[in-house]
Amino acid sequence: MYNQRFPDIKPYLKTHSLMPENQETPIAFIKKDIVENPLFYRRNHFPYPMLSSSFYWLPINGAVKEPKLFSMQELIQFPAKKLKVVLECAGDKRSFFEPKVYGEQWGNGGISQGYWKGVPLKALLEQTGLKDDAKEVIVEGYDYGKQPGIDGIHRFARSLPLEKALHPDTIIAYEYNHQPIPFKHGYPLRLIVPGWYAMASVKWVRQITVIDSHFNGPFQSIDYVYYPHKDNNNDSFPVTNINVNSTIQKPNNMQILNAGRHTIKGIAWTGKGTIQRVEISTDNGQTWSYATIKSDHRSQYEWVSWSYEWVVSEKGEYTIMSKATDSYHQTQPMSPFWNRKGYGYNAADCIRVKVE
Amino acid sequence: MYNQRFPDIKPYLKTHSLMPENQETPIAFIKKDIVENPLFYRRNHFPYPMLSSSFYWLPINGAVKEPKLFSMQELIQFPAKKLKVVLECAGDKRSFFEPKVYGEQWGNGGISQGYWKGVPLKALLEQTGLKDDAKEVIVEGYDYGKQPGIDGIHRFARSLPLEKALHPDTIIAYEYNHQPIPFKHGYPLRLIVPGWYAMASVKWVRQITVIDSHFNGPFQSIDYVYYPHKDNNNDSFPVTNINVNSTIQKPNNMQILNAGRHTIKGIAWTGKGTIQRVEISTDNGQTWSYATIKSDHRSQYEWVSWSYEWVVSEKGEYTIMSKATDSYHQTQPMSPFWNRKGYGYNAADCIRVKVE
Repeated sequence: MYNQRFPDIKPYLKTHSLMPENQETPIAFIKKDIVENPLFYRRNHFPYPMLSSSFYWLPINGAVKEPKLFSMQELIQFPAKKLKVVLECAGDKRSFFEPKVYGEQWGNGGISQGYWKGVPLKALLEQTGLKDDAKEVIVEGYDYGKQPGIDGIHRFARSLPLEKALHPDTIIAYEYNHQPIPFKHGYPLRLIVPGWYAMASVKWVRQITVIDSHFNGPFQSIDYVYYPHKDNNNDSFPVTNINVNSTIQKPNNMQILNAGRHTIKGIAWTGKGTIQRVEISTDNGQTWSYATIKSDHRSQYEWVSWSYEWVVSEKGEYTIMSKATDSYHQTQPMSPFWNRKGYGYNAADCIRVKVE
Repeated sequence: MYNQRFPDIKPYLKTHSLMPENQETPIAFIKKDIVENPLFYRRNHFPYPMLSSSFYWLPINGAVKEPKLFSMQELIQFPAKKLKVVLECAGDKRSFFEPKVYGEQWGNGGISQGYWKGVPLKALLEQTGLKDDAKEVIVEGYDYGKQPGIDGIHRFARSLPLEKALHPDTIIAYEYNHQPIPFKHGYPLRLIVPGWYAMASVKWVRQITVIDSHFNGPFQSIDYVYYPHKDNNNDSFPVTNINVNSTIQKPNNMQILNAGRHTIKGIAWTGKGTIQRVEISTDNGQTWSYATIKSDHRSQYEWVSWSYEWVVSEKGEYTIMSKATDSYHQTQPMSPFWNRKGYGYNAADCIRVKVE
């Protein structure tokens, strides 16, 4: 009657908006240590740019000794660096803040990782040279448009302080997972700033400009700023490094389980240093045990996978938490640092389950 | 450099679990009045069944005068009925209950609609005849397995009281949107019970049995029962009719908007009767106005689309609500009827936006 194939069962991106396209990774279902293009989260400020089909040049200009245009052919001849890097949206987990904050209600899927390969920005800046008063490096994307709360039309652009721009791991990438970068993720060139929230990793790089002052573009002076107060901008400071963080992938929040043995599993990551330990509580934070961290050889910028064997015999409701600590002795707090635009959520991850 | 096509931007199902597969419709992004197969929500209790590739027969037996086997060829020769029907998961909107309830945390996407075509069950039962003591009709699916909180292995099966089984719109469907039913939605035959929550619309129909007693299968004596109390089963009653309900599709919850004119839009539906009006409040329920209901010719069982033009000049935070009323004078309540397993949520829909 029917030529039944094995049904194709797979997770998909979760959609927040289509104009611009913002979709999050179904992180609970990511089992590998890299996220393939179809499930890589998509975070856009603007419509996708239309790239010219003419030959591609990367200009570097401004406070440099010799402005240059680099062709793709030239770029790929520099010594390349390949890094496994977590990219995390600054608004990842925004929906978990209490009180709630306005903006897109990201769950825990504003995060992905994989291999980025490219040329260190430092190597390019060595070719152009820097003037003595060089202070910041602006990287501008091809994408532009309007955004609520910000007047006028802007290109997406961000600056890096010279120190970060010259870090050997800050790269102009041209490959993701051993392939040309997928269009939606920045083809042909994307700045990758390991350890910083991903607003810094500018897609569709259009030009690079060295300046002798501080750049005040809206994506670092209005957005991507921590505002600790609801009604004023006092004490604000820019979003940069990824906070130490962890996510429970299994079980699901509010899942009903049978009594017995269950593997609690998840990931942990940080922007500075490496993950040193992950602790699990199954009694709402009263007691904690160490999770087992998967000990593959790993790079500094990737997430670690962890697991914990939980044996539960008594029926009832349980609150399970995970809490990571990094090599800079940063530990996830029990309560998040609330800020008006909802960036950098990193409180201990917390789910509830019922054992029946 | 690159043969850029217009990037493919589309919503996807949102995944709750893969074993069994449970994924919800991105309802905010459904603009048509039918949901195509790829975005039809998937709600399974068990793994997908493996159907035999032999010739398909539908047996009807039990308290009938003459048990019969119907072939597909016979079924499609009966006068067919085609109905545009909302199917809504009883757990749709479960995640909105406060206090939270255990179980899969469905958002507002446990709902889809489209055209189902098939033969009225009544026509088949007229062929077999009913014994005088016939009381209920059990419809059993090919899917089976174990489920937390329910002992043993069970097939998915549900009964209908005779009156509902003999309703002329209760059909054994073989087409969805003018095509054979997609495998994941019940190929080759699915019972469709318009107006009831979709647990009643048994997929992959395996057999139909008329009984002279009350069926007590776990999917109507344990699950799909309203339990109003947290700690005991008093006052419980079965889940049947879809409650009057509405969903705001646009804007998004917690969206930041510019001042000016905005179209608030959404859908409304009910299991009994038809939608008579949809009211909108933009001031947290203090005042209400009528939304405009799209006045296409429509069938009794489909959702209606509605919209409301909102002009907002003053910056600030707004709570927007929608509240539907049906022809039986049922109106969405301001607070949901809390029940332990989280079925039938239908409080007035509520989002917050900030105007900047």
